[in-house]
Amino acid sequence: MANSPFIKDVPAARAMQAWRAARDAAGCPARLPAVLVPVADAAGLVTAGPVWATRSSPPFDAAGMDGIAVRAADTLGATETTPVRLAADAYDVVDTGDPMPAGRDAVVMREHVHYAGLAAELRAAVPPYQHVRSIGEDVSAGELLLPAGHRLRAADIAAAAAAGAIELLVRRRPVVTILPTGDEVRPIGSQPGPGEILDTNSVMLATQAREAGCDARCLPVEPDSPDRIASVVKAAVADCDLLIIVAGSSAGRDDYTARVVAELGILAVHGVAVRPGHPVVLGTVGQTPVLGAPGYPVSAALTFDIFAEPLLAELAGAPPRTRPRVSARLARKLASPLGMDDWVRVRLGVVAGTTVASPLPRGAGVLTSLVRADGLLVVPAGQEGHHAGEHVEVELLRGIDEIAHTIVAIGSHDLVLDLAASALRADDPIVTLASSNVGSLGGLVALRDGLCHLAGSHLLDPASGEYTLPYVDRVLAGTEVSVVRLVHRDQGLIVAPGNPLGLAGIADLARPGVRYVNRQRGAGTRVLLDYELGRLGISPDAVSGYAREEPTHLAVAAAIAAGRCDAGLGILAAARAFGLDFVPVTQEPYDLVVAASAMDSPLLAPFWSLLRSDQFQAAVTALGGYSTKEMGRRIR
Amino acid sequence: MANSPFIKDVPAARAMQAWRAARDAAGCPARLPAVLVPVADAAGLVTAGPVWATRSSPPFDAAGMDGIAVRAADTLGATETTPVRLAADAYDVVDTGDPMPAGRDAVVMREHVHYAGLAAELRAAVPPYQHVRSIGEDVSAGELLLPAGHRLRAADIAAAAAAGAIELLVRRRPVVTILPTGDEVRPIGSQPGPGEILDTNSVMLATQAREAGCDARCLPVEPDSPDRIASVVKAAVADCDLLIIVAGSSAGRDDYTARVVAELGILAVHGVAVRPGHPVVLGTVGQTPVLGAPGYPVSAALTFDIFAEPLLAELAGAPPRTRPRVSARLARKLASPLGMDDWVRVRLGVVAGTTVASPLPRGAGVLTSLVRADGLLVVPAGQEGHHAGEHVEVELLRGIDEIAHTIVAIGSHDLVLDLAASALRADDPIVTLASSNVGSLGGLVALRDGLCHLAGSHLLDPASGEYTLPYVDRVLAGTEVSVVRLVHRDQGLIVAPGNPLGLAGIADLARPGVRYVNRQRGAGTRVLLDYELGRLGISPDAVSGYAREEPTHLAVAAAIAAGRCDAGLGILAAARAFGLDFVPVTQEPYDLVVAASAMDSPLLAPFWSLLRSDQFQAAVTALGGYSTKEMGRRIR
Repeated sequence: MANSPFIKDVPAARAMQAWRAARDAAGCPARLPAVLVPVADAAGLVTAGPVWATRSSPPFDAAGMDGIAVRAADTLGATETTPVRLAADAYDVVDTGDPMPAGRDAVVMREHVHYAGLAAELRAAVPPYQHVRSIGEDVSAGELLLPAGHRLRAADIAAAAAAGAIELLVRRRPVVTILPTGDEVRPIGSQPGPGEILDTNSVMLATQAREAGCDARCLPVEPDSPDRIASVVKAAVADCDLLIIVAGSSAGRDDYTARVVAELGILAVHGVAVRPGHPVVLGTVGQTPVLGAPGYPVSAALTFDIFAEPLLAELAGAPPRTRPRVSARLARKLASPLGMDDWVRVRLGVVAGTTVASPLPRGAGVLTSLVRADGLLVVPAGQEGHHAGEHVEVELLRGIDEIAHTIVAIGSHDLVLDLAASALRADDPIVTLASSNVGSLGGLVALRDGLCHLAGSHLLDPASGEYTLPYVDRVLAGTEVSVVRLVHRDQGLIVAPGNPLGLAGIADLARPGVRYVNRQRGAGTRVLLDYELGRLGISPDAVSGYAREEPTHLAVAAAIAAGRCDAGLGILAAARAFGLDFVPVTQEPYDLVVAASAMDSPLLAPFWSLLRSDQFQAAVTALGGYSTKEMGRRIR
Repeated sequence: MANSPFIKDVPAARAMQAWRAARDAAGCPARLPAVLVPVADAAGLVTAGPVWATRSSPPFDAAGMDGIAVRAADTLGATETTPVRLAADAYDVVDTGDPMPAGRDAVVMREHVHYAGLAAELRAAVPPYQHVRSIGEDVSAGELLLPAGHRLRAADIAAAAAAGAIELLVRRRPVVTILPTGDEVRPIGSQPGPGEILDTNSVMLATQAREAGCDARCLPVEPDSPDRIASVVKAAVADCDLLIIVAGSSAGRDDYTARVVAELGILAVHGVAVRPGHPVVLGTVGQTPVLGAPGYPVSAALTFDIFAEPLLAELAGAPPRTRPRVSARLARKLASPLGMDDWVRVRLGVVAGTTVASPLPRGAGVLTSLVRADGLLVVPAGQEGHHAGEHVEVELLRGIDEIAHTIVAIGSHDLVLDLAASALRADDPIVTLASSNVGSLGGLVALRDGLCHLAGSHLLDPASGEYTLPYVDRVLAGTEVSVVRLVHRDQGLIVAPGNPLGLAGIADLARPGVRYVNRQRGAGTRVLLDYELGRLGISPDAVSGYAREEPTHLAVAAAIAAGRCDAGLGILAAARAFGLDFVPVTQEPYDLVVAASAMDSPLLAPFWSLLRSDQFQAAVTALGGYSTKEMGRRIR
């Protein structure tokens, strides 16, 4: 069967149904085999049948307190004024947990016993069965302890052992095999050559499988050869419960997954209405389900969550994993294509008492969007998105307490914020400083809209030549804020090592053959460029590459290091990170604009004390191109 | 140092502080050592320093679509009517992920390319950088990828590998050693003799430690000998990061943990204001923190959660684990002692749109309360409890979706409900049938108060001789309910094998020397006993053991099997479960009273179809003493 050039958009639920149907048609087992394992080894596994207690726990009537065991009837009439004395043969000293001696039916606490020689004197009568733990108080033989389909936790294991279980009947742990493919894919740990990429998907999917309670193993990378892939697939399905073929799931020239699955087994689905994730293959080979995952890392990770995880839970007979959800206010408008479930990664923070969700970059290749995500927001296929400020439901990827301890910074990016993020957390792991990168102006707007605690800003006002404060007055008029100076930093042209084009300054950017790389609109560095170009009377049209936008200084440096561009305006530290040269243009202040409600909050206290620490200032200076002379000074 | 006979009530937070202070005084490391591990092996471990990207990802400008790579400037002016033709040397065919060829700065999707011989015809101009993934789009070299103190998940591992990490600096996995003590304690897997109990705490604590990301090992059980315990402790602390000594943490005659810790190191705390958990020992020996956990299993489990888990998180430099919380309506009044944090296990269910929390048995020995718990409710030391119906915050132990799929049954207990619970779940693991056992009358009250979906009931009306409906009219007047018959079942006297006392019926319970075991007030079986005693003109006072109450048929049978009692009224299945004899008294119906809102809900649909299934009816009949002739019949 030839590849069909275009793949379908099957809704996720229907795709899952089709996969199940293929699984049944191929005779794949609906549940994993049941096996007996020693009770101590059963943690994390799923019961394959009900667990009935075969012993009672406690297995005997037991003392519930330290004291003496008595016959309650013997204590009748005891009061402060008419104590009852029990002779030595009428009571027994017991400790908590001791079996109740024959003929005794109550315990008197040690504190309430007075001795007169060997006789025990009691100053209050006790009712029968006082401080006695009945046999079977915890569980009686014959009682249902656990149903089938229960994933065993610590207390379950202990209770099962107490109730007489020596072995438990559980589902065998599922085995997931991962087969990476692609001519350009190299194993992690190797040094990729030009045009090559590392196989990071295998270790990610294997870790996801292990987190889902499976055994996982990764096969070596196979090149884009349908015959080789087919023969490896045929061998692999014989001893796993799910085979994941990574990449090659689309319909490009070198995409063979769908074809191999169709030739060897049942191709149930090719393409699902999920973004990111679209080119997904679902099918079976032999009696094993096969998942073809896209090579884009976010797609691969979500594909596991959406399709593999429920299938594996079904095989184990366990309820599917679900994540806790919270309601959050959406930081900005979110457009979403009709016809696709859109899985949007968001950062979360609690700003002035409201949980705020800021969408992260949405590209399927931006794995850091998943690394930085606190939650997932699914915009269903039938919906075109959300307005800014709308309340949305978010699946949590991080603990809600951690989110409550997150300092939300939105605005211009600077490496000093990264350094601070790591230093804060090393000191107290609950503290997170989360920076979203939208440029200086975007940060001020976010602060105005109550979406962050602070905004990094280095906006130059062309009229006054002053930084930050004129913009604060303009954008944040009526909003109470403080402004704290973080650093001064050198801005200049980042150029290739040795400055091969001999660029001396902004004026040279208009020279023919110079390929510039710009920052996005609203970035302080772009404002600075426009200011300098204006001063020199150079039109942006004259700068080749003015339209190529990168979101950070480092991304600008990366483009230059790769030889795709010749120059970009940025900071010295970014040039240094790539071993590039730097042509200074100016020194500028970089400020933090802080919401009034956050300024003196306990949340920000560790940040302000960090800025005062000599050790931190020394670390910033060591980056190069920074001056900390005004670090932490409140300028408004 | 001698044991002090009484232990203190140190508030949990202050106890933790005292433990930390002892740890610092003893020179225990505040953090575990940092080690380099291959990136693929780092999942679940905690970063010991920031992870900076050393490579950009993607490492080159790459095609973001399948199609052709072009120079955007070459496509200027292309429209439907004025297409532009690119000669074969003016474009390159590319697949998604391919490096962008030199000189090309945009990609045209395959679907939009028309070929005229070797020339590619474009009917629309494309802007520069269209469908191009910039180098560093995901992460740029020099960027902070992860801060210190971050527990590594699947996506983190993959992103770190993509950003150039081959090894990661992480905290070594903590090692927890567990030392069980007690003369009467036998290893699990063995057959305990009279008065002996199984060491179920070690496997539970080891599992909790593993769930918290630690390596855990259990030492053999030590008898109650302070010298032996001391010498094992001295050896054990040398190669672990936390030593947990199980049992012996109180102040009884055979409790040596506090004394051993005080003699070998620092005894920081003996006794905490936490229930269950109170007799806890916190201290250090050598440079290792030591925790003395109580022997009661619920106390042991909670002690790990409250004290060990935060300490282990601190050692790893990670944020402490927190559980999601929900607000729930409390099903009944909850009294709680002042001066102790009271950790109450609750079942949760969603009844008529409200999440309802029903407290489970609170004894420290009732491990099944933890097995069955969906959540934990902490009543702080300064609070005397909660009123019924109050809204309380509950820490979730189970997924909220599972809770929403839980059928809440409160009332009389019957084994058929247990059988149904397991059958439902085997069929669909998301479905839980949770029965709380409060007797028939309690069930009707719970139903009236909107706390459950259905109530099991077998209440005999002495006036009419009719079951269930008269009580429904009385207790549930004004509440709309349905009534469904579950089974008929034999009630009789459960007696020792061979019926050694030759009991023939209820009348014999008044015979001297016969020790009865009763059910709790409001239980249908107790109503039946009272009815039969009344009919025979026997006063309850004449029945020895009338005051001994057990909450289930099985608990009654267990007490008889243990020889503590001679007879109890109950069902045949309970007698059979213990190999006991049975003297029939009567046959009675057992009904389900169902909230009107639940009767036709999707939640209960699988339950009703189960009751119709031949297979299930056969399984019930096989229990013995049941008739299914009216199973599932709606009698109102």
